[in-house]
Amino acid sequence: MHVEALGWSASGTLRILDQTRLPGEERRIEISRLADLVEAIRSLRVRGAPAIGIAAAIGLVAVLRSRRAAGDWGAETDRGAGFRAGSDAGSDAGSGAGTAARERFLSLVDETAAAIADARPTAVNLRWAMDRMRRRARRAQGSPEEVLTVLRGEAQAIWDEDRATCSAIAGHGQALMRPGIRVLTHCNTGALATGGIGTALGIVHLAAERGLGPHVWVDETRPLWQGARLTAWELGRAGIVHAVLPDSAAATLMAERKVDIVLVGADRIARNGDVANKVGTYALAVLARHHEVPFYSAAPTSSFDPACPTGAEIRIEHRDAAEVTAPFGVPVAPAGSPAFNPAFDVTPAALVTGYVTERGIVHPPFEE
Amino acid sequence: MHVEALGWSASGTLRILDQTRLPGEERRIEISRLADLVEAIRSLRVRGAPAIGIAAAIGLVAVLRSRRAAGDWGAETDRGAGFRAGSDAGSDAGSGAGTAARERFLSLVDETAAAIADARPTAVNLRWAMDRMRRRARRAQGSPEEVLTVLRGEAQAIWDEDRATCSAIAGHGQALMRPGIRVLTHCNTGALATGGIGTALGIVHLAAERGLGPHVWVDETRPLWQGARLTAWELGRAGIVHAVLPDSAAATLMAERKVDIVLVGADRIARNGDVANKVGTYALAVLARHHEVPFYSAAPTSSFDPACPTGAEIRIEHRDAAEVTAPFGVPVAPAGSPAFNPAFDVTPAALVTGYVTERGIVHPPFEE
Repeated sequence: MHVEALGWSASGTLRILDQTRLPGEERRIEISRLADLVEAIRSLRVRGAPAIGIAAAIGLVAVLRSRRAAGDWGAETDRGAGFRAGSDAGSDAGSGAGTAARERFLSLVDETAAAIADARPTAVNLRWAMDRMRRRARRAQGSPEEVLTVLRGEAQAIWDEDRATCSAIAGHGQALMRPGIRVLTHCNTGALATGGIGTALGIVHLAAERGLGPHVWVDETRPLWQGARLTAWELGRAGIVHAVLPDSAAATLMAERKVDIVLVGADRIARNGDVANKVGTYALAVLARHHEVPFYSAAPTSSFDPACPTGAEIRIEHRDAAEVTAPFGVPVAPAGSPAFNPAFDVTPAALVTGYVTERGIVHPPFEE
Repeated sequence: MHVEALGWSASGTLRILDQTRLPGEERRIEISRLADLVEAIRSLRVRGAPAIGIAAAIGLVAVLRSRRAAGDWGAETDRGAGFRAGSDAGSDAGSGAGTAARERFLSLVDETAAAIADARPTAVNLRWAMDRMRRRARRAQGSPEEVLTVLRGEAQAIWDEDRATCSAIAGHGQALMRPGIRVLTHCNTGALATGGIGTALGIVHLAAERGLGPHVWVDETRPLWQGARLTAWELGRAGIVHAVLPDSAAATLMAERKVDIVLVGADRIARNGDVANKVGTYALAVLARHHEVPFYSAAPTSSFDPACPTGAEIRIEHRDAAEVTAPFGVPVAPAGSPAFNPAFDVTPAALVTGYVTERGIVHPPFEE
């Protein structure tokens, strides 16, 4: 029913819908090299905190597979010149050679996962997924081949859980919906951003399926237009009524009493409830408070970072000036103009009416 | 020193810097036809409330001149078949024929001025300038030729007064400046928007000339990028330190205490102090209040509309969806996406710290 942003290809590589090509072109690409995976995450071919985590997990498995094919690990390597264990080649698992091969493989998992986790600093799901994969690898029994099989299952589990999480968030979010509700949203938090129906936009998708006829105001979301390019595309395919607006016009809609609720996602939520999300979210929260419009963040509990006390500790990614000054290569500012281009901002918990999670609508302090 | 957005050409036509071509190209165009003038105003080749008023006045004279050359009025017409007064052709001024020719000319002035005034509904200076030209025509003595000469002087007077007004606004605005001040601005309110040094940006220009080293945060100003395209260009030429930002990132700058003052212009100010200005202004005002940052609107008293009691009575121009969904012809939303695209918004007086005018910094209720 909804589009799939990512998945496995038939040959076991990561397959993603290249979101930088939307809405003009629906192009899928296959990834099995580490450099390509990092590039795809960094340049937002795959984006949205949950989708990045899933893509990273599937991508990690795909990269490990391709490294085996390249002879970097596995039976071929065990017989190779670079093999250091010193024992006879081809010895059985559990021997010194098997243990060494396993350790080398686990090191490769660690290094690869660390490199993937570094691709974008703010999204907690990326680091969370990579940590989970590394821990799972350590716990797994057997040969590298067997560990890889376990990791493949773990990546699929991360995806399956996210799909279920999205459905649960959408379900709990129905408590906020009513017939004809006018929802303002920012960035893209739908099927394109997750492994399922979406987070904030998933609530809208489900409300539409249930016949509530929601109307969505879509913040275009400069500088990268995730709202205009992705959310409008997704809503159009789902037949949900919507209109795109410049981010700065949201205030007018609120002043005209045309917004019933603001629904956004979250890239990371600190222990105190501060929300790091796409730049522009914080402005919406201030405006919503001023106009007494409820403001909700919808996110899986994996976006909650108990290790992060407040938003002040969240490292915000600053991106290239050209995203602002020359969108799509069209210069809208004089050549060489400096730009201020943070990818995210932090909304203090005090401005958040509530958090829609797969466990229900919650408020700080959060229990773990 | 600063760029001139408009002026007279050697042959007496209106000459404007085509602002839709900036920052890529510095192209000047000459206008003497009504349709071209209306198109130039409507498509923002000339923009900024004061500049539109001046361009309309010079343009009105240019159009009237071209209509004479086309034989629509003047000595040639008086002898023409279309002449209705019934008396001998070529009779002296003051006779019935002269009076009729004068009346026909004044009707032409009225019609032309009305058509120009309709080009954009929100900017009060446009209507104000056209009303002033029509009244001046009625008061002028003599033949159409003599009335036209008076109108030429009146257009020049409107321009000269605006230049002096800008300087006076900049002078009064210095009370708000201090060394190293960090100013956030929206849209373009500089030399490109006026007949002089600018309004809000004029204050910054003068502060820079006086060696205060201001730093300007330039809201890109979607959907038409007047900040990125025009303000950054103007500041770059003037050697003033600045950075462009997505409109939605202004909130982050305020939260980080990097904005000392918000300075914007005004397209129209109601009697109660409500300010109609470029869409995005209202959001900034709410954000500035939330962060306790002073928020000033700088505008000539000609932007104050005593006939308009409050902002609720200001008609807001809604523009084409394509400005939002396909900027520069590049589709950023799916084809046919609806958009909400008001050109202006209204900032309630309660959110405005003060109004910088040529008569000083004022607060409502305004005396006339």
